[in-house]
Amino acid sequence: MASNKRAKLNVGVIGLGRLGKVYLRDLAARIPETTVAAVADIDRALAAGLAEEFGVPNSYGSAEELIADPRVDAVVIVSPTHAHRDNVIAAAESKKPTFCEKPPALSLAECAAMSSAVAKTGTFFQMGFMRRFDPGYAAAKEKIARGVIGRPVVFKSSSRDPFRPSLEYANPASSGGIMVDMGIHDFDLARWFMGDVDTIAATGAVLAYPEMASIGDIDNAIAMLEFADGRLGIIDLTRNGVYGYDIVTELLGDAGTLRIGYLRETPILTMTKNHVAHDTVPYFMERFERAYTLQLRNFAENVLHDRPPAVKLEDGVEALRTALAATAAHRTRQRVKVSGIH
Amino acid sequence: MASNKRAKLNVGVIGLGRLGKVYLRDLAARIPETTVAAVADIDRALAAGLAEEFGVPNSYGSAEELIADPRVDAVVIVSPTHAHRDNVIAAAESKKPTFCEKPPALSLAECAAMSSAVAKTGTFFQMGFMRRFDPGYAAAKEKIARGVIGRPVVFKSSSRDPFRPSLEYANPASSGGIMVDMGIHDFDLARWFMGDVDTIAATGAVLAYPEMASIGDIDNAIAMLEFADGRLGIIDLTRNGVYGYDIVTELLGDAGTLRIGYLRETPILTMTKNHVAHDTVPYFMERFERAYTLQLRNFAENVLHDRPPAVKLEDGVEALRTALAATAAHRTRQRVKVSGIH
Amino acid sequence: MASNKRAKLNVGVIGLGRLGKVYLRDLAARIPETTVAAVADIDRALAAGLAEEFGVPNSYGSAEELIADPRVDAVVIVSPTHAHRDNVIAAAESKKPTFCEKPPALSLAECAAMSSAVAKTGTFFQMGFMRRFDPGYAAAKEKIARGVIGRPVVFKSSSRDPFRPSLEYANPASSGGIMVDMGIHDFDLARWFMGDVDTIAATGAVLAYPEMASIGDIDNAIAMLEFADGRLGIIDLTRNGVYGYDIVTELLGDAGTLRIGYLRETPILTMTKNHVAHDTVPYFMERFERAYTLQLRNFAENVLHDRPPAVKLEDGVEALRTALAATAAHRTRQRVKVSGIH
Amino acid sequence: MASNKRAKLNVGVIGLGRLGKVYLRDLAARIPETTVAAVADIDRALAAGLAEEFGVPNSYGSAEELIADPRVDAVVIVSPTHAHRDNVIAAAESKKPTFCEKPPALSLAECAAMSSAVAKTGTFFQMGFMRRFDPGYAAAKEKIARGVIGRPVVFKSSSRDPFRPSLEYANPASSGGIMVDMGIHDFDLARWFMGDVDTIAATGAVLAYPEMASIGDIDNAIAMLEFADGRLGIIDLTRNGVYGYDIVTELLGDAGTLRIGYLRETPILTMTKNHVAHDTVPYFMERFERAYTLQLRNFAENVLHDRPPAVKLEDGVEALRTALAATAAHRTRQRVKVSGIH
Repeated sequence: MASNKRAKLNVGVIGLGRLGKVYLRDLAARIPETTVAAVADIDRALAAGLAEEFGVPNSYGSAEELIADPRVDAVVIVSPTHAHRDNVIAAAESKKPTFCEKPPALSLAECAAMSSAVAKTGTFFQMGFMRRFDPGYAAAKEKIARGVIGRPVVFKSSSRDPFRPSLEYANPASSGGIMVDMGIHDFDLARWFMGDVDTIAATGAVLAYPEMASIGDIDNAIAMLEFADGRLGIIDLTRNGVYGYDIVTELLGDAGTLRIGYLRETPILTMTKNHVAHDTVPYFMERFERAYTLQLRNFAENVLHDRPPAVKLEDGVEALRTALAATAAHRTRQRVKVSGIH
Repeated sequence: MASNKRAKLNVGVIGLGRLGKVYLRDLAARIPETTVAAVADIDRALAAGLAEEFGVPNSYGSAEELIADPRVDAVVIVSPTHAHRDNVIAAAESKKPTFCEKPPALSLAECAAMSSAVAKTGTFFQMGFMRRFDPGYAAAKEKIARGVIGRPVVFKSSSRDPFRPSLEYANPASSGGIMVDMGIHDFDLARWFMGDVDTIAATGAVLAYPEMASIGDIDNAIAMLEFADGRLGIIDLTRNGVYGYDIVTELLGDAGTLRIGYLRETPILTMTKNHVAHDTVPYFMERFERAYTLQLRNFAENVLHDRPPAVKLEDGVEALRTALAATAAHRTRQRVKVSGIH
Repeated sequence: MASNKRAKLNVGVIGLGRLGKVYLRDLAARIPETTVAAVADIDRALAAGLAEEFGVPNSYGSAEELIADPRVDAVVIVSPTHAHRDNVIAAAESKKPTFCEKPPALSLAECAAMSSAVAKTGTFFQMGFMRRFDPGYAAAKEKIARGVIGRPVVFKSSSRDPFRPSLEYANPASSGGIMVDMGIHDFDLARWFMGDVDTIAATGAVLAYPEMASIGDIDNAIAMLEFADGRLGIIDLTRNGVYGYDIVTELLGDAGTLRIGYLRETPILTMTKNHVAHDTVPYFMERFERAYTLQLRNFAENVLHDRPPAVKLEDGVEALRTALAATAAHRTRQRVKVSGIH
Repeated sequence: MASNKRAKLNVGVIGLGRLGKVYLRDLAARIPETTVAAVADIDRALAAGLAEEFGVPNSYGSAEELIADPRVDAVVIVSPTHAHRDNVIAAAESKKPTFCEKPPALSLAECAAMSSAVAKTGTFFQMGFMRRFDPGYAAAKEKIARGVIGRPVVFKSSSRDPFRPSLEYANPASSGGIMVDMGIHDFDLARWFMGDVDTIAATGAVLAYPEMASIGDIDNAIAMLEFADGRLGIIDLTRNGVYGYDIVTELLGDAGTLRIGYLRETPILTMTKNHVAHDTVPYFMERFERAYTLQLRNFAENVLHDRPPAVKLEDGVEALRTALAATAAHRTRQRVKVSGIH
């Protein structure tokens, strides 16, 4: 709120599902650098209604129309994953700066097409990995750079959902399965903090929700990582963190350790006979509310100030490749070389 | 973000200092039920600049002009305390629903004039005490109502600022002194949770910042409360909570205890040789960010839906009376009856 | 366990109630510097039984007999408070180094008699205030000496019992009332960390256990302290800390704050739907187990190595004087000067 | 301290190294059910000195002599691991109830000889795994039995030493390597909470102390477990938990999660500018002090009251087999079937 006058980025938002609405709200109301010029959703009525609610002048029933709108300077893609490739390529062909929610796609072939379009046109592209913008994770990155824990040698990350997603959502055909759907965040953090992963061994099972078997996915998974330089990592994922949404990452260094995470939502302790209790964080919207806003604001600033993207398409591709390697490692029960996944 | 269409409250914001800007941002961008129709500040240029930044159509150099603007349905008063009386009376005479930041005024005489105007005109008036809207304090209220801790019998509250305010700000002539400026929140909580205070004993001293003596105020204070029904309370205030902004309230019941408060801002632990550390909450903006937003949203909802105010002018007046009693108790070194303060 | 050979102090334990048994066990089994040469209790059979259990060669039905036993080098007095005066005087007249549990007595007149006997005979005397030996409190003392928090300016201490004592035990005629019985620890800490208290204002009430009124005591109390040099303090005491035994002390400095206390007994968190819980410390035996042992070991070392007592009789007398001043302040509803209590 | 008269178990302690001294102190002074009848160490002078210090009537330079002493009713073996086989066999042949510190041995062949001797003679044998007696772990076991977290489906355990052991101690020839030396506790917990492990995949590296390579061991290791019934587990071990000794175990159930562990030694928080800090647990002696005592007391009670051992030799053998499987999995980079290790 410092300066009174500044150029704003006119953004178009593609996809108005659960997260799309959060992005729309942030871009429309919480990020001083942006206005929303248009929204699009295949549910045209939904798009029109949200446009009215947030004072957005234009709404469309297709991404193509929105991208073609000359009042749209940049696009934020929150459409279902299967639409990312076409959305990204269309935006690239219009040379409109693009933010795309993770994962980039479900297959590396789609990623290759996207990368090619982005590279060929030289379009600005920023990948969405909101955890990197969480103040806890950002502080960890900064502390490591300052040498606070020496050299990080082991990466540990645990992601727990408080309940299983709907079977429709969780279906690996659209979600990519637990390693991609949940794990891609942890795999991205692994790469961000430690560099490329060389090999992965993994295991997993249906342990809490028998019905997950019907869609061919598991509800608990563990992946053991060897980084290219010999350092180690471990990731565990569960759909039955029934107590609350709990994301914890540790960086073990040779001179200290960082632990990122928190478990309490409301600042109150209830103390009754021999019992002290607090609540938990409900879900990712609450845990990463600030990170989502900071991420989109960073995108806008990078575009406005001609800065490079904070997270590149390549980061999304490599995180996906790692998640696919973990999936393969689980399925084949073999240690899998990440670079061998195509 | 559920409904697409709803009536919005057109608010005018009076006073654009530090907190005024936060309120403007909330009303303009974070609260779906409001739009900002006008802003006013005696610094007319500041008002114009912020109006442009937040897309507010009208800006004024005086509260009177804003209140007179027919496009303004309701007013939010965040002007300096000494202006509250005139602002509130003007708004009441225009019968415009009013939200006024705490304290209502520095003297009970001003309060009486305000109360009279509000009562005579039947204007909706809501007092600002944001802590009541903090999810921790709100949860405490709800838990007590459910009987979780039995009957609360002792109220304890501690407010710590991480540094002293400027001498200009802290001057008791404009701030009311530490008991009013800092303590009014705790006195309001005391009343909210426990009911009216009967007597107060208090002490205080200049202990950390010798220069506070030059303006006739103290930097540490303690007040010991007896409620009208014989229950007890204790409040301590310090300007030298140098480690961070730390607000802790406890309700001791005969079957349990509630403790509201938190100390860590960023979700990261740094662990080095025999040392585990985290940061602290910088200041009230960070600690009560959500409470401020929820408070204004509640105001708007109450006005739009013809509900009574969540916090009444009388609550502000009685909290002020209690704070003035504490001030008198400190000065006279006597136990002071709150009802004797006029 | 470093040296294989060392002189041991042959201790006699007077009083074998709840705490007496703990002291006996510590002196017999946990403190390498001591052996127990004799035990005494007015219940002679109890004394004989415990002597056999702990391999103590002599047991008596009176303190006098024990003190007269030439095999007893030093005495530890854990008898009921009303017996302290006679026990201490008898030990002093035998010039046997003496440890005496708090409070020294219930009246300052008794204290004067004890002080006189100790001074006249030049007997080594160490007062029991185990909190000073708790690693948390000891660390606080050391950190303050190192300047970690600058100058401490406000002392805050809160003692909570998880239930009320028996009415027989709590009777002010034998316990001294809540300010003496519970508060003497906090008043001693106040003096230890901050120096002498100048004035006290206090309040209190029967709020949780109506039957306390029948013995003329209260179950909640608050005392507001002004130290001789103008610094401030606050102490609150409750018998209805029903969630667990909870002792918290804070030292607010002008450059930092120390907080001593802990609330969890068993190192386990139980996390169920939106709920994270742990247990609490049951009572003072668990909270201060280590402190009790360290205290007696320190006594033995001081005697064996001709060092001065870590806590003097005078400390006990002044803590009692302060607690009596608080009692008077509560009763008279006046600010009371501690030095005026005789 | 309830009964005055009871039979005591006359114990002989074999091995008086670091842990042996702790066991001696516990058996001699902290456990009411035991007296120490004799101690033995190959350093005869050490044995004699400690015997004198703790009032033990007999001391020997060999285990054989101690076992042959008719005044010794039961033996506690804390000798170096390589001596366990001979000590256990000698004790079994004398039919003296035996407690043996973990690991049972370094090879399964030695274990077989021990098992055979114990089985043939029907000697009471209790394996030492002190974590099972830690109040946190014991509470976890009890809560699971009560169904508090539903069915545990994932076991997670992390053990961190605050520094590397001496190269002499760490040498795999005598320590068994990190998976056996550190990991056997976690493998035992895995079995105790979840049942037998079917397969293990593992990785590890020298990451913090390059000199570990010179003795053929690693300083960080990760093991991924599949239990016989399809449930999952993960264990990570590090020698560079430089911030402090940190042992954390989690049981993820389908209706809740338990987390055992604690990180703070001294009950004090130090709060300075934007910084809140506490210390950490120095090492295993401090973390498991109570567990060690409870474990030996349980041994004595079981022997005195003809109860079965709380932890059987077989538990030690299977934990060792699991640790050896993890070692093999790390070396071969293959998933290893635990039952295939002989």
